[in-house]
Amino acid sequence: MPVRALWWDDGRLALIDQRLLPRREKVLRLRTVAEVARAIRTMQVRGAPAIGVAAAYGMALAAAQHRSTPEKSAKLLRATRPTAYDLFVGIETVRAAWSEGGDALAAAHAYRATVVDQCRKIGEAGAGLFRRRPNVLTHCNAGALATVEWGTALAPLRVARDRGTDLFVYVDETRPLLQGSRLTAWELAREHIRHAIIADNAAGYFLRTGAVDAVIVGADRIARNGDFANKIGTYEKAVVARENGVPFYVAAPWSTFDGARPDGRSIPVEERDPSEVLEFAGWRTAPAASRARNPAFDVTPAKFVTAFVTPDGVVRPRELASRLPRTTRPE
Amino acid sequence: MPVRALWWDDGRLALIDQRLLPRREKVLRLRTVAEVARAIRTMQVRGAPAIGVAAAYGMALAAAQHRSTPEKSAKLLRATRPTAYDLFVGIETVRAAWSEGGDALAAAHAYRATVVDQCRKIGEAGAGLFRRRPNVLTHCNAGALATVEWGTALAPLRVARDRGTDLFVYVDETRPLLQGSRLTAWELAREHIRHAIIADNAAGYFLRTGAVDAVIVGADRIARNGDFANKIGTYEKAVVARENGVPFYVAAPWSTFDGARPDGRSIPVEERDPSEVLEFAGWRTAPAASRARNPAFDVTPAKFVTAFVTPDGVVRPRELASRLPRTTRPE
Repeated sequence: MPVRALWWDDGRLALIDQRLLPRREKVLRLRTVAEVARAIRTMQVRGAPAIGVAAAYGMALAAAQHRSTPEKSAKLLRATRPTAYDLFVGIETVRAAWSEGGDALAAAHAYRATVVDQCRKIGEAGAGLFRRRPNVLTHCNAGALATVEWGTALAPLRVARDRGTDLFVYVDETRPLLQGSRLTAWELAREHIRHAIIADNAAGYFLRTGAVDAVIVGADRIARNGDFANKIGTYEKAVVARENGVPFYVAAPWSTFDGARPDGRSIPVEERDPSEVLEFAGWRTAPAASRARNPAFDVTPAKFVTAFVTPDGVVRPRELASRLPRTTRPE
Repeated sequence: MPVRALWWDDGRLALIDQRLLPRREKVLRLRTVAEVARAIRTMQVRGAPAIGVAAAYGMALAAAQHRSTPEKSAKLLRATRPTAYDLFVGIETVRAAWSEGGDALAAAHAYRATVVDQCRKIGEAGAGLFRRRPNVLTHCNAGALATVEWGTALAPLRVARDRGTDLFVYVDETRPLLQGSRLTAWELAREHIRHAIIADNAAGYFLRTGAVDAVIVGADRIARNGDFANKIGTYEKAVVARENGVPFYVAAPWSTFDGARPDGRSIPVEERDPSEVLEFAGWRTAPAASRARNPAFDVTPAKFVTAFVTPDGVVRPRELASRLPRTTRPE
């Protein structure tokens, strides 16, 4: 049974509470747009494509309950997290259908199906990159949990494995919230893909010593020129990969591409609660008098990207602008 | 009262158990060389200069008890940790005195005094570097806890603060053992130096956005050409600092310089227990089926070092070989 982050279940949005993995597989069943907004804000569901789909279903729940307007519901969901572009695309897709008197739930289902289909295509498009580069580093979780099914960064690895590539994945643990050790390792372990969790600090060691053949990550937002935002730490891995001549790939569905934004300079970067850094599972690790800073994303310039793995193939950064689908600004 | 990592106390080696900080300030009083070896191996005492001094006192304890030979005691202590060069220098200094019928305890005291004095001089030599670069990033703990008193990387910051520089220190938390958030932040908080703990992943963000004016770290071993080993993650910070034109300084006493080793390629890198990555305070964070890799150090090529801050002044990597004191191989 493949991993699924969320699904529609008899009038409710069912999703795995990702804050509890890998210790507990608890399924939440959300009935209102407010519950969906809270689940996104608290990262019970996370990953750019997945929160886009969750928000689409949040809009559908609001439409079914006739207690809000399309605009008010969209505003509530847009305020949850600022960086991932898919969130705004998912909201806007259903808002437009609802505003025009269409079937909001059908629009959410269609949005979900598109995202899943694009992730599957990302897997097909990118699998060949790893045939001769089986030792792969990834950061954060860009798997099925982040995208509903398949994943973005993990989709090509799944397909490569199915085609017989004997992969070994170095999994950055991804502090502060450990999406690597908690979520990516959980997905890989379920599918018996060989892997080792490493401290984020150790990625440079393995890149420099030749242990890593390629890096692949997901993205939260990609500008027209190829600059992209992703989980904090991605920028460091990209710089060190280039220093060592290791190819660096970014996998994303079209909903992550912010085609109206010329470059990464103005991408909003969420700064989250310092307690994520100062505490661990409620246990204070730092001195009482110490403060923390906690940016949740960083922006990596396009020059560090070898290629984007898209649903329509592998695209070099310089070719990106001409390959983008036409979009309007959903924000 | 300044921080001291360890001191001689009526025939025993007293040291702060650094595994318990910042929650508890427990002082251990060690009576035998075996107890000292265990304290070094388990990282109750850590930091290259500090474990050199601890090992010197371990040799003195062995000499006083007449139950071992200089060679056997040295062998026991050498086997504790492979990377820090100071360990071997501290052992050899006392072994030589003991073997020649000299006063081993006096030799240990003298070794300790030399290390403390050199750290004080590092502070004097490096403080001026930060007068116009008050926003500083550091990695791991290279403070008094790592060096007995003053610190290496933190010594220039202490002196700069005393001279009126209004510092702000970004403290990498330094997974897996959190020496940054547990130890460096504890030292800075005690002395009211403004600081923010950050996830190791966030260092690149702050380097790229111009928040950091300079980076300073300690070292565990420095080769003749300036390649150096330090806590895992140092290499990534050095590469990203250079990418952003931010100066990168390495502070160390002469006991860290392995003058007989031409470059960093053959520096031994300790790989520690995977449980340090897979668990947190005894709480398993990763899936049961997942493995980890846990190199404790990495080697940074000299080309990423702006300058070494030594007891005898600020030295560029290309000048290093001519400035090294003559040493014999203590290993």
